[in-house]
Amino acid sequence: MEVYLDNNATTMVDPEVFKAMEPFFCTIYGNPNSLHKFGAGTHPKMVEALNYLYEGINAADEDDIIITANATESNNTVIKGVWVDKILNGNKNHIITSEVEHPSITAVCKFLETQGVSVTYLTVNEEGILDAQQVKDAIREDTALVSIMWANNETGKIFPIAEIGAVCKEAGIPFHTDATQAIGKVPVNVQACNVTYLSFSAHKFHGPKGVGGLYVQKGYELTPLLHGGEQMGGHRAGTVDVASMVGMGLAMHLATKPEALEFENTEVKRLRDKLEDAILELPETVVIGGKDNRTPNTTLISIRGVEGESMLWDMNQKTIGASTGSACASEDLEANPVMNAFGSDSELAHTGVRFSLSRFTTEEQIDYAIEVIKNAVKRLRTISSSYAYTPKHHVSEL
Amino acid sequence: MEVYLDNNATTMVDPEVFKAMEPFFCTIYGNPNSLHKFGAGTHPKMVEALNYLYEGINAADEDDIIITANATESNNTVIKGVWVDKILNGNKNHIITSEVEHPSITAVCKFLETQGVSVTYLTVNEEGILDAQQVKDAIREDTALVSIMWANNETGKIFPIAEIGAVCKEAGIPFHTDATQAIGKVPVNVQACNVTYLSFSAHKFHGPKGVGGLYVQKGYELTPLLHGGEQMGGHRAGTVDVASMVGMGLAMHLATKPEALEFENTEVKRLRDKLEDAILELPETVVIGGKDNRTPNTTLISIRGVEGESMLWDMNQKTIGASTGSACASEDLEANPVMNAFGSDSELAHTGVRFSLSRFTTEEQIDYAIEVIKNAVKRLRTISSSYAYTPKHHVSEL
Ligand SMILES: Cc1ncc(COP(=O)(O)O)c(C=O)c1O
Ligand SMILES: Cc1ncc(COP(=O)(O)O)c(C=O)c1O
Repeated sequence: MEVYLDNNATTMVDPEVFKAMEPFFCTIYGNPNSLHKFGAGTHPKMVEALNYLYEGINAADEDDIIITANATESNNTVIKGVWVDKILNGNKNHIITSEVEHPSITAVCKFLETQGVSVTYLTVNEEGILDAQQVKDAIREDTALVSIMWANNETGKIFPIAEIGAVCKEAGIPFHTDATQAIGKVPVNVQACNVTYLSFSAHKFHGPKGVGGLYVQKGYELTPLLHGGEQMGGHRAGTVDVASMVGMGLAMHLATKPEALEFENTEVKRLRDKLEDAILELPETVVIGGKDNRTPNTTLISIRGVEGESMLWDMNQKTIGASTGSACASEDLEANPVMNAFGSDSELAHTGVRFSLSRFTTEEQIDYAIEVIKNAVKRLRTISSSYAYTPKHHVSEL
Repeated sequence: MEVYLDNNATTMVDPEVFKAMEPFFCTIYGNPNSLHKFGAGTHPKMVEALNYLYEGINAADEDDIIITANATESNNTVIKGVWVDKILNGNKNHIITSEVEHPSITAVCKFLETQGVSVTYLTVNEEGILDAQQVKDAIREDTALVSIMWANNETGKIFPIAEIGAVCKEAGIPFHTDATQAIGKVPVNVQACNVTYLSFSAHKFHGPKGVGGLYVQKGYELTPLLHGGEQMGGHRAGTVDVASMVGMGLAMHLATKPEALEFENTEVKRLRDKLEDAILELPETVVIGGKDNRTPNTTLISIRGVEGESMLWDMNQKTIGASTGSACASEDLEANPVMNAFGSDSELAHTGVRFSLSRFTTEEQIDYAIEVIKNAVKRLRTISSSYAYTPKHHVSEL
């Protein structure tokens, strides 16, 4: 049986989404900007897609949603746009973010630090989140932007976005949130939360890879990251990828309509909890950050004495896919930054395994995964030098 | 009959390319960076795609090809990367380009001018090109980059890239060329032409929209436009869009293999010439920039007394798609910048119509288009006030 439990890295395109995209490759292939039917023929489905995007995050009609290549581009657009507008060409010089953002935030901030920008990386507590008061305390005269993720990719932990939005609104500082892991998992409402900028990536909610979005609240402008033609009202140049835009729109609709969010928070959550509870029956296993306040599809579990990569290897032999954390970091087998942020002792730092489900995950898959995981832990602990030597081990119980 | 003659704006995805992409939406959908078979399953076709890209432009093994969202992103990456590295953090302050580049070059340069960068826009001659001596003469102590397109999107005119490459090499200045309109139309050989950076977009050669490439010669580095994860060796972050990358690779192969370039320069050229010659039989029509030295699929024709947009409208009624120039500019019905660069009198400035064919264009389509175009010109000249009053008109002949 094949079991894909790495939906926070990327998802399968929903077959219904793929079907909606298909005509735009070889049939209705015109450039939407062209003055002929081959171009104009793309417009109805593009309008529908945009409407789905506005609905999905409750954007107001006067707000803007810019189609980008992915959340990485959306994040770079916001932070570098603010850099150009408010720092290089303004009198601000400070950005506030958290220490557990995705690399597409932190790497941009690190780059800006090389350019003389001051960045505050707020720490997270033992639950893996921070509170709005920390943001408030960090705000300075020269703060140009606050950027805090909606939900963490590794733990699924949900940040207090409404409270942070209120703090930023009061201080008159633009508030960006990377909602890549929140869309389709929890309700995302930009108006209710006073969000200024919001990033997302279609492939995290059963849309295609290579397309994302950037919400921009009315009245806010950003120097574009991609200068060029007049696409997206001049905010993001480049020939519009119609198939991907149509796919992302429908994917947003399918992932955020009330029944879908309800399914996610009942059925997907039930399967995640079943898997998690079964693993937690094993001794010396712990959910990083605890069980509260998470996206319903995600669990990051530390299994003492077992290297995350070894677990992945064993599971892969049994055609189960999971992750040690962000797929972006997978290539360089570093300790998981979120695990580090929690201050896990170094022995635990490499023991995280992230399981992320989707609405396509079945009960049979979870049952199979539980069996494989239990066997893998048993095997790996038997041969684990670090586990064998720790006084707290319970090999007998396995 | 439907006749699509706007292939410089965008092309139909080759059905063979679409077929190669299809498995990567709903079947082999893993994140290539993941440590499991769902991710690793993408690798063989990604490697094949990269090989096709290297072959297509004759890149050396040690050179880099970065997958981007489109040529716009590639162009922005080069120019803004040079800005950060050589201007903001170096002692250069000058960029050389031409006055007929695509907006994804000129708009970036205009932005850099607002940041204090000095930009030289080389003029083109009556044939719509410039020569390497102009580049040589414009080079200064503080020149950071030369960026000249390989072939123009509106006229199809081919620039002397090998000569410009030699000049830049001698002067020790990086040379970028936007080859978006050259790939699949003329041989593109980065090594033979001493190219440092080269941009392309898949949807211009029967690949999908939303994916492009940036060639970077060995030994050259650029601060990324998209900071984030370690994808593309850290040169371009963001989850890799496998389907699009696979599609672009195969599209490159199909468009640049010797038989394909041969077909382009015989059969496609023959049909372009047939169409062009038929239009030139009408009085007071002229090929902008003349017939020499063009991509084989393109003709930009000025028809005195006939607004380009009116022609498009008439042709669209008969299900023929063409353009007044760059699709990017279509939304704001401005005079065509290339027509302006040629110094056409203002009466001619709005009379350009661009026909761009592809390997999918048929003889029947061209025959039908010729008939429709002749009738449209007749009708429009009859009602054209500007044409009626010009002493040079030949209404009787129509
Ligand atoms: C929280 C978060 N932000 C941003 C990204 C980047 O998404 P993409 O790779 O589609 O740009 C990811 C996914 O890797 C993520 O989980
Ligand atoms: C010469 C040239 N450069 C760049 C581009 C931009 O391509 P894209 O819109 O795919 O980024 C185009 C196409 O519009 C072009 O013709």
